[in-house]
Amino acid sequence: MNTPDCPLCAGAGGDVVWRGARARVVLAEEPQFPGFTRVIWDEHRAEMTDLPAAERAGVMALVWCVEQTQRELLRPDKINLASLGNVVAHLHWHVIPRWRDDSHFPAPVWSLAQRDGGARMTMSKPLVARYRAALAERLEALVKT
Amino acid sequence: MNTPDCPLCAGAGGDVVWRGARARVVLAEEPQFPGFTRVIWDEHRAEMTDLPAAERAGVMALVWCVEQTQRELLRPDKINLASLGNVVAHLHWHVIPRWRDDSHFPAPVWSLAQRDGGARMTMSKPLVARYRAALAERLEALVKT
Repeated sequence: MNTPDCPLCAGAGGDVVWRGARARVVLAEEPQFPGFTRVIWDEHRAEMTDLPAAERAGVMALVWCVEQTQRELLRPDKINLASLGNVVAHLHWHVIPRWRDDSHFPAPVWSLAQRDGGARMTMSKPLVARYRAALAERLEALVKT
Repeated sequence: MNTPDCPLCAGAGGDVVWRGARARVVLAEEPQFPGFTRVIWDEHRAEMTDLPAAERAGVMALVWCVEQTQRELLRPDKINLASLGNVVAHLHWHVIPRWRDDSHFPAPVWSLAQRDGGARMTMSKPLVARYRAALAERLEALVKT
């Protein structure tokens, strides 16, 4: 699994919420985007089509679980999904809850900030903690089905 | 399927490569990103988890087909996948072939340009035409399997 100089081979890539047999789910450390979550494939692969179809479906099942849990617990205005990997070419999905008053909306989070977004940054830590706990439980239930 | 003021309900959203029973695939009109393709769900839905699991899998099968065809025909350095919809909240996937010398690499295409990228903009039209033809054929074969 280890590729020299790959930060997602060397480390978890965030605050680990759940670990499965082949992938992990972490909370990104992006304070201006509370709830920003990543689904990371453990092995060093660049593209989704580098995985067999069954493994692709397994990754997406994790992404849908994260999306659904964000929608129910965090009630965002929109979900953003992306697998880019231009800087770190190790498969990872960004699952980002977005609100109309966040710093970048409606631009993507990689674009220029549109406003301060301070209100969103102070989203209650207890709410994110409840999301985190629900997500861990649902991911565990998912792999047991 | 029509929602007032939604451009993806009102129009195709690009140069249509293929139409299926529930979704279409278009070439984006983004000259600086040759081969930039979108998979668009025909009905007005905001999030992937608004679709039943089988339909989600159907959308992703189209995305994987586009990705695979881009890799084989266009040989990009990386593929970028994203479903954002902050501006147009009608389900659509961006499938973007990226090259190290394109205008924005390694930044996402929604970020600031890093360089002129002119070399990439002049990618031969015949190559994109071959990609387009192969993609139409493969998508048609996919839905017949």
